[in-house]
Amino acid sequence: MSNPEHGKIYLVGAGPGDPELLTLKAHRLLREARLVLHDDLVPREILALAGPHAQVVNVGKRCGAKRITQAEINDMMIEASRAGKDLVRLKSGDPAIFGRLGEELDALNDADVPFEIVPGITAGIAAAASLGMSLTDRRTASRLLIASAHHASEQAARESAPGSKQDWSGLSRGDTTLMIYMPGHGLEGLRDELLEAGLAKDTPAILVSNATTRRQRYRHTTLAEIATGTQLAAPSVLLIGRALDRARGGARASREVSLLIDQAAAALASK
Amino acid sequence: MSNPEHGKIYLVGAGPGDPELLTLKAHRLLREARLVLHDDLVPREILALAGPHAQVVNVGKRCGAKRITQAEINDMMIEASRAGKDLVRLKSGDPAIFGRLGEELDALNDADVPFEIVPGITAGIAAAASLGMSLTDRRTASRLLIASAHHASEQAARESAPGSKQDWSGLSRGDTTLMIYMPGHGLEGLRDELLEAGLAKDTPAILVSNATTRRQRYRHTTLAEIATGTQLAAPSVLLIGRALDRARGGARASREVSLLIDQAAAALASK
Repeated sequence: MSNPEHGKIYLVGAGPGDPELLTLKAHRLLREARLVLHDDLVPREILALAGPHAQVVNVGKRCGAKRITQAEINDMMIEASRAGKDLVRLKSGDPAIFGRLGEELDALNDADVPFEIVPGITAGIAAAASLGMSLTDRRTASRLLIASAHHASEQAARESAPGSKQDWSGLSRGDTTLMIYMPGHGLEGLRDELLEAGLAKDTPAILVSNATTRRQRYRHTTLAEIATGTQLAAPSVLLIGRALDRARGGARASREVSLLIDQAAAALASK
Repeated sequence: MSNPEHGKIYLVGAGPGDPELLTLKAHRLLREARLVLHDDLVPREILALAGPHAQVVNVGKRCGAKRITQAEINDMMIEASRAGKDLVRLKSGDPAIFGRLGEELDALNDADVPFEIVPGITAGIAAAASLGMSLTDRRTASRLLIASAHHASEQAARESAPGSKQDWSGLSRGDTTLMIYMPGHGLEGLRDELLEAGLAKDTPAILVSNATTRRQRYRHTTLAEIATGTQLAAPSVLLIGRALDRARGGARASREVSLLIDQAAAALASK
């Protein structure tokens, strides 16, 4: 059993970017927190919801010259807990989906530190919602495969796996919606692998950048064309599948939202 | 373009059950709503968050003698919009993941009714969080496959597909975390299919029932044993994969949570 005098570590999903897509629980923990460790991608508007006396620390991997290591983050959490302090470890999206949660859980478990995971809306699911799309469909898509180009290549590099970075077999029926995180590099390779796995060239594909923020942009295309045309800014997510055929109203809705966001941004800029 | 005098239909995810796992946006829309159509699985505690003047209607498919059809639900939404009323269509979990969202989007698009999808925390992701687990892991799990036994069999029945209900090839490397919704029937068949697809017999598996509610129960087992032992009450979700090996602290945390919930329930009952 954990020492009852230890502080608790809350590993909290900050959601995709829109502060209104925080859970009530994440919002409450953030308001109550005295110490918040957050990743780079958590937007300012969400950090601003922390209580006035909270210490808010960016431990993102890209925060300039001083690179904070995973071991240092683990130590900060363990030290806070042993000092009897609760701590919010805020990760963009959902912490359990490509959030490098595994390493932190191992460290907390090894140190016998009490923790709780608070799920968040992951970016890909929010991206589809913002475009008015369903990810599954009784008629066309019985499953959803969430993959990360980045994670896969790390793994492949470690194992020196030959050929394909991922095993895409099982997709030839076309009844799977694909959601690829961090697709930025290697879209040509991904396209070739998926075509080889039996997906049709005209399978609908949508690249969404900065989902649910005012910088959201998307490009509706086909699998054959994902690597051509304008590339979108990171962070982005790539959706591929027959279920996206039904995105008519959603794309219209999104254009209207983009327009509203642009108007709001222009109004702010003119002040 | 939609008629600006039309009411807007909000297709809102109610999350897995715990009211604190609603998003801030879902909570706001529910408080402001005058008309709420909800599915069976949305718990009373969440419906209680609707405003005092809201009309809250159960349109669940299992609500006793009078079976409301999908066409009737579609008509109720379209009529509300044409009467200038906003409406909240509340679905458990995330509406885009096995929420039969596709049919409703088609009807709203065909009727040119304005709508917006508000994502929610889906049950499987919440279940993993409640057990202190990551679903992906840089070291063991580069992807997550969300599938539904129920949807797959509907599709297979329609297409008279021979043999396996799903194409499970691509799983033999063991680097995919599987999340199976509605696994209740046919666990033996699922086990056999997954073993045949190359998954190891000792792959960790966890069945979670009523995730994030006070009725949450789980059973930690292996793929070979999923069909044996006590079965858990619906709704449930089945998690399978190497990433679940790391659930030590989480299982402990969940036991403590169960204990707290039992204590709270006992305290309520003794009043």
